[in-house]
Amino acid sequence: MLKIVTVCGSLRAESYNAMVARTLPLLAPEGMQIKASPPIEPIPHYNADVQARKIPDAATALGDAIRAADGVIIVTPEYNYSVPGVLKNAIDWVSRLPDQPFKSKAVALQSASQGILGGARAQYHLRQTLVFLEAFVFNRPEIMIAAAKGKFDETQGHLTDEVSRGLIKQQLAAFASFIRQVTPAA
Amino acid sequence: MLKIVTVCGSLRAESYNAMVARTLPLLAPEGMQIKASPPIEPIPHYNADVQARKIPDAATALGDAIRAADGVIIVTPEYNYSVPGVLKNAIDWVSRLPDQPFKSKAVALQSASQGILGGARAQYHLRQTLVFLEAFVFNRPEIMIAAAKGKFDETQGHLTDEVSRGLIKQQLAAFASFIRQVTPAA
Amino acid sequence: MLKIVTVCGSLRAESYNAMVARTLPLLAPEGMQIKASPPIEPIPHYNADVQARKIPDAATALGDAIRAADGVIIVTPEYNYSVPGVLKNAIDWVSRLPDQPFKSKAVALQSASQGILGGARAQYHLRQTLVFLEAFVFNRPEIMIAAAKGKFDETQGHLTDEVSRGLIKQQLAAFASFIRQVTPAA
Amino acid sequence: MLKIVTVCGSLRAESYNAMVARTLPLLAPEGMQIKASPPIEPIPHYNADVQARKIPDAATALGDAIRAADGVIIVTPEYNYSVPGVLKNAIDWVSRLPDQPFKSKAVALQSASQGILGGARAQYHLRQTLVFLEAFVFNRPEIMIAAAKGKFDETQGHLTDEVSRGLIKQQLAAFASFIRQVTPAA
Repeated sequence: MLKIVTVCGSLRAESYNAMVARTLPLLAPEGMQIKASPPIEPIPHYNADVQARKIPDAATALGDAIRAADGVIIVTPEYNYSVPGVLKNAIDWVSRLPDQPFKSKAVALQSASQGILGGARAQYHLRQTLVFLEAFVFNRPEIMIAAAKGKFDETQGHLTDEVSRGLIKQQLAAFASFIRQVTPAA
Repeated sequence: MLKIVTVCGSLRAESYNAMVARTLPLLAPEGMQIKASPPIEPIPHYNADVQARKIPDAATALGDAIRAADGVIIVTPEYNYSVPGVLKNAIDWVSRLPDQPFKSKAVALQSASQGILGGARAQYHLRQTLVFLEAFVFNRPEIMIAAAKGKFDETQGHLTDEVSRGLIKQQLAAFASFIRQVTPAA
Repeated sequence: MLKIVTVCGSLRAESYNAMVARTLPLLAPEGMQIKASPPIEPIPHYNADVQARKIPDAATALGDAIRAADGVIIVTPEYNYSVPGVLKNAIDWVSRLPDQPFKSKAVALQSASQGILGGARAQYHLRQTLVFLEAFVFNRPEIMIAAAKGKFDETQGHLTDEVSRGLIKQQLAAFASFIRQVTPAA
Repeated sequence: MLKIVTVCGSLRAESYNAMVARTLPLLAPEGMQIKASPPIEPIPHYNADVQARKIPDAATALGDAIRAADGVIIVTPEYNYSVPGVLKNAIDWVSRLPDQPFKSKAVALQSASQGILGGARAQYHLRQTLVFLEAFVFNRPEIMIAAAKGKFDETQGHLTDEVSRGLIKQQLAAFASFIRQVTPAA
């Protein structure tokens, strides 16, 4: 059984990206269990002076969840042609934890946005961050859900667009193989 | 008189980048006044639900300071090969303000880091964000202060490295011309 | 009268990007004249040893056309998530010319591709190159024509998609203002 | 025995990057054999019309060498804050070959330049290209040899700087493990 944790880059209650994350268990291949990480919202702004006193519990909890997982899926909107500050801040804290959680961890990326590029720009910036963190980042298919409005059942909080769901199924199945390939102990 | 506001990407009390920002008035050409923006620390995590209720005062204050300035200098460390989350979060809020503050604003970038690249990677990600925000971003000389330790008088809180100071003087003088060229009303 | 030169990143005879470039004069505001640059095809691979002997005439011709223009529009496909090598090679040569042609030149970017991102990734890489070259790069609206097939009259060799044409009209009009703002001598 | 092929991004006879590539066999761990790829110089500019007739032999030869190797090391200068056009052009051709050579191939990056960033910007652009090509790109340590002049014995054509050599030794040893991990058949 592969254990996957999702980290969502949006704090909005009705976030499309949270809905994507919530839909993933329905699209996962057999043998893959997907659940949400502890929330990033309570993680304070990164400050080295705070770190010198004590790493916040919420950051430690996020790091523990990542370390315990066989793979991580970051599901995020794009803000201002890059990664949401709040998500990057969570990663900035996680990067300071002992036994750095992303090291040699398999990671896949997904994004949904109202724009026509579907969050692509945020993903490429995340990839650069994950070079520093020495993660193994899954390549393709990439999941960039453009023009998100209309692709969700907002009452149920689920992704309903069949093209996107099909592509995600492909990504999750390929991600399972990728995890087994690059982290054989998983 | 050109009024410049600096936005610092680090919250650490002894931040090298804050020291760079503090040194700038000593290196500015005549006719350029440089002061720090309101702090980014009190700006909460961006959340569209919070925005729908009320944009936080600290974000508004930052936006007002940017709007009132003839030019902005962002002085920031690089975290995990990209922009610090806390700085990006401040920009994410500012981008939601009415009369978007960065629009058609002249912006220059500076970074200092302990690494050998001096924060370069953060600057190129910031440049992409500033395309969306429709700023006019100054090109060269770029200020990337590598191996920061040893280039500062940490007691006085100032940048002392002569090479870096010389380059900053060049940048500030050229930035003054740039502001007058691209925003003639300034 | 603003004189604009287009540089096309594709060598293919039926290139969608060449068709976009060919359509631009029909979409230009009054007072803007648009014509194609000398071809990049005859410019050999960049080699510093060749440069030491003599910069190829085709590179010089391209540089002269850029220097003589009030603005440059680069119209290019995306190859392998970045700038086509053949276009980058032309820029590599132009960058070595005396009186570097892109310096302080207003530049706008356009791309068309069969993919869903319309060449976006090539544009952000080009923007980074143009930082080094000290060009003034126009921000928005960005022209990224996705799913190009079906948006062209391939017999006439013209862009026919009304949404794309409307956006290009907006860009060209705004680019005209931008040129007059950032390069007042133009 | 791991067979590694190096692809050099510079055509200059006395290229620092070619010298780095030439030095690698002296720094390789036991069980790793490193040799140069067929030259990229004879590969013509990419043109889909040419491709439709016949992929040039030089591109096929490069693709064959990559396919036959257990890992690829790209050693390249940075031109204009990005990948040399001539190198990107070679990759553009290779990407069109049947049984795409970079797919699931382990790749490491190295760069040397006269500037202070040592070619870093070219490496991050290459990484984005290699996402499309579905390569497995080695993370860290990164090899970015800044201020190259003085770090080479130009008569012998070798890298002599001890710090750089030590870091390359580390990278090659870690790359060997990486290859065995991500491509177990190698």
